[in-house]
Amino acid sequence: MRAVDIIRAKRDGASLSREAIDAFVTGATDNSWPDYQTSALLMAIVLRGMSGQETSWLTDAMVRSGDRVDLSAIQGVKVGKHSTGGVGDKVSIVLAPLVAACGVVVPKMSGRGLGHTGGTLDKLESIPGFRVALTLDEFRGALADVGCALVSQTARIAPADKKLYALRDVTGTIESIPLISSSVMSKKIAEGSDALVLDVKCGRGAFMHTREDATALARSLVAIGTAAGVRTEACITAMDAPLGRTVGNALEITECIATLAGRGPADLEALVVTLAARMVHLGGRALDPASAEAQVRHALRSGAATAKLRALIARQGGDARVVDDMTRLPQAARRLTVQAEDSGTVARMDAEMIGRASMLLGAGRDRVDAPIDHAAGIVLHRKPGEPVRAGDPLMDLHFNDDQRLDEARLLAGKAVTIGRAAVETPPLVLGWVQAEA
Amino acid sequence: MRAVDIIRAKRDGASLSREAIDAFVTGATDNSWPDYQTSALLMAIVLRGMSGQETSWLTDAMVRSGDRVDLSAIQGVKVGKHSTGGVGDKVSIVLAPLVAACGVVVPKMSGRGLGHTGGTLDKLESIPGFRVALTLDEFRGALADVGCALVSQTARIAPADKKLYALRDVTGTIESIPLISSSVMSKKIAEGSDALVLDVKCGRGAFMHTREDATALARSLVAIGTAAGVRTEACITAMDAPLGRTVGNALEITECIATLAGRGPADLEALVVTLAARMVHLGGRALDPASAEAQVRHALRSGAATAKLRALIARQGGDARVVDDMTRLPQAARRLTVQAEDSGTVARMDAEMIGRASMLLGAGRDRVDAPIDHAAGIVLHRKPGEPVRAGDPLMDLHFNDDQRLDEARLLAGKAVTIGRAAVETPPLVLGWVQAEA
Repeated sequence: MRAVDIIRAKRDGASLSREAIDAFVTGATDNSWPDYQTSALLMAIVLRGMSGQETSWLTDAMVRSGDRVDLSAIQGVKVGKHSTGGVGDKVSIVLAPLVAACGVVVPKMSGRGLGHTGGTLDKLESIPGFRVALTLDEFRGALADVGCALVSQTARIAPADKKLYALRDVTGTIESIPLISSSVMSKKIAEGSDALVLDVKCGRGAFMHTREDATALARSLVAIGTAAGVRTEACITAMDAPLGRTVGNALEITECIATLAGRGPADLEALVVTLAARMVHLGGRALDPASAEAQVRHALRSGAATAKLRALIARQGGDARVVDDMTRLPQAARRLTVQAEDSGTVARMDAEMIGRASMLLGAGRDRVDAPIDHAAGIVLHRKPGEPVRAGDPLMDLHFNDDQRLDEARLLAGKAVTIGRAAVETPPLVLGWVQAEA
Repeated sequence: MRAVDIIRAKRDGASLSREAIDAFVTGATDNSWPDYQTSALLMAIVLRGMSGQETSWLTDAMVRSGDRVDLSAIQGVKVGKHSTGGVGDKVSIVLAPLVAACGVVVPKMSGRGLGHTGGTLDKLESIPGFRVALTLDEFRGALADVGCALVSQTARIAPADKKLYALRDVTGTIESIPLISSSVMSKKIAEGSDALVLDVKCGRGAFMHTREDATALARSLVAIGTAAGVRTEACITAMDAPLGRTVGNALEITECIATLAGRGPADLEALVVTLAARMVHLGGRALDPASAEAQVRHALRSGAATAKLRALIARQGGDARVVDDMTRLPQAARRLTVQAEDSGTVARMDAEMIGRASMLLGAGRDRVDAPIDHAAGIVLHRKPGEPVRAGDPLMDLHFNDDQRLDEARLLAGKAVTIGRAAVETPPLVLGWVQAEA
């Protein structure tokens, strides 16, 4: 099967056979297809689409490009979680110990941040000593002992995705539901979970800007998981404003610690409880959603979730004392307060702009190889729907390096819109997508 | 202007600016755009299209990627000619001396054959000693002395097209009217003609299979030429059966010689006279099309066209004695006659299959670096519309190497359909496209 014939078939709108899709994924990964053929087919897929069947085959071929982690030696239902990424999205770091505290095993492999979105691994590495690069045996050991682990992907998890994603990033072929969903699901399926809860973000700070697009992506993700024998549910959540009140690595860890102790911001706690209850239910630890939610709330109140976080940090080489003494986390030498220029109600706080401002302060990277300042970031004093008077602090910028401070301050100020009218804040959880019976 | 932003704009259906198109052509040609970005944009162009304005800018950028030949020192209107390629298409070799014999300068740069279509350069090289690789000064000298020259393109003619075409060939991005027409016209404009007559083939043996597609291509070609200040007319001609009665390099040269002496096959002569008359008219040597045609017919009858062919061959180092003694051309050692299996009328003779059969005999190449047997080819004894009885010779296969003879014979036999009913042969010239006033 010649590469050019496969490309031409998709260009002309045909459905590709399983053999053609296998040839593509194998060729792209072992470089027997030159990159110019791979990128031509990627563009044809973006513009011609793929059926659900093709997308499942594509995902399966990407899983088979590497290893599928075997977690069968660990007892119980292993429930994974994935978020499509947002600003201030520290949900995974809260969920893993919280759900593990309820008796469900949570194996979690994560990525790093790029652009305006942060990465779970970068946040974890702000904890002194924390190691994300565990071997597979260390990963399984941590899961068996603690019930959760937060690690980086090994090179053997869906290598086809690494290759294709790098090429998509520079060829304008990111924006495609079949390509996005096969990328996400190939990694999640390879990671070896029995069930998955997905958090698909939608809005200004998310990859999917409209609810329709987010729902279409969620449906595709759930269909792929179901076809692969992994019970999958997806939640559509709003990402117009940052989640919680902190953006930036160590700052977000402090908020995770507070949330696990039942003292988190309302929006973050609500989302965490919703997702955790689903995971506990999927993990077979509750007979109905209501009792799952009760277990989760109990873990937050009782200190069990905080204890699990201490165990998780310690097991991965980190300084668990940060949980009780947050001054052990990196702190920025300088702060600058952005004040409200007007009185009224915060009508809008653009998540993408806040994310970019945080990146400019040093908390994120605009190139994959750029260094990160774990202490830098933004603490929000106001969120949408809250009243404000001119001169009130809107947010504090935390930084060590002021090279791009002016740009960051300008962007952060522009991110906030203050209105006179009362503002209705929409619910964070917009809906759920489950497999069709 | 980042490559990825240009790719994304076209992917989303936007029109590209002149600056974006220049960046693309420059980047593709000097390799500052990696091939995977170039091919992604090519696929987006195939699927999203380009406006007439974008196509003109693309063509202009491709012309400027190299040199535009300066023919201003040569007196008179220089009229170029291009055919989109077909089977048995030896028109250029007849037209150049014929039109030059009528006093119009014909500068002609040609390509080589690939697949089932032959190439003018390969046909010319079957003449012993004939040199196609002239320097620009030799080219201009031949034009000044003889009035016509048939040469290969120099490396400085539209180098962007060479780069893009090679990439399109392996990435399924050939089939696109903006890309095809910019490829053709960038070369023709760079070759320095003042006016152009184009022969756009349509049918089974042509690149464009339907009359609608051929007309759309012709319109695009004429619009580009006109925008570049080159007076351009395009003729749509049928290419369902091979043109003339020979396919293969030296065999076609013998047919060219016969046609220039007024003894050519009817279909070839009719097409040649039509195109030549247009060129003579565009070249300012006739006040109206009727007198142009009279001049052309006179040149065929008077021996002037044959004399010009002798001069052309001699000026380019070839053995001009072939014109009067065709045994000086390479001849195949072996022949095989394909006979009719049925009686009736030839209803169809598939040009593409005949072209492929000829290639299998050694007359063509399926890889750009494959050698060619100048003597190999096919002589047709019957053409569509002609009566035949079972056992009559349909065609002779000429060959030296019988390695793929069985395959060629099978294909040649399958190319011919014999029917019982009378067959109406459609006209060869289907229409003309001229610039809008």
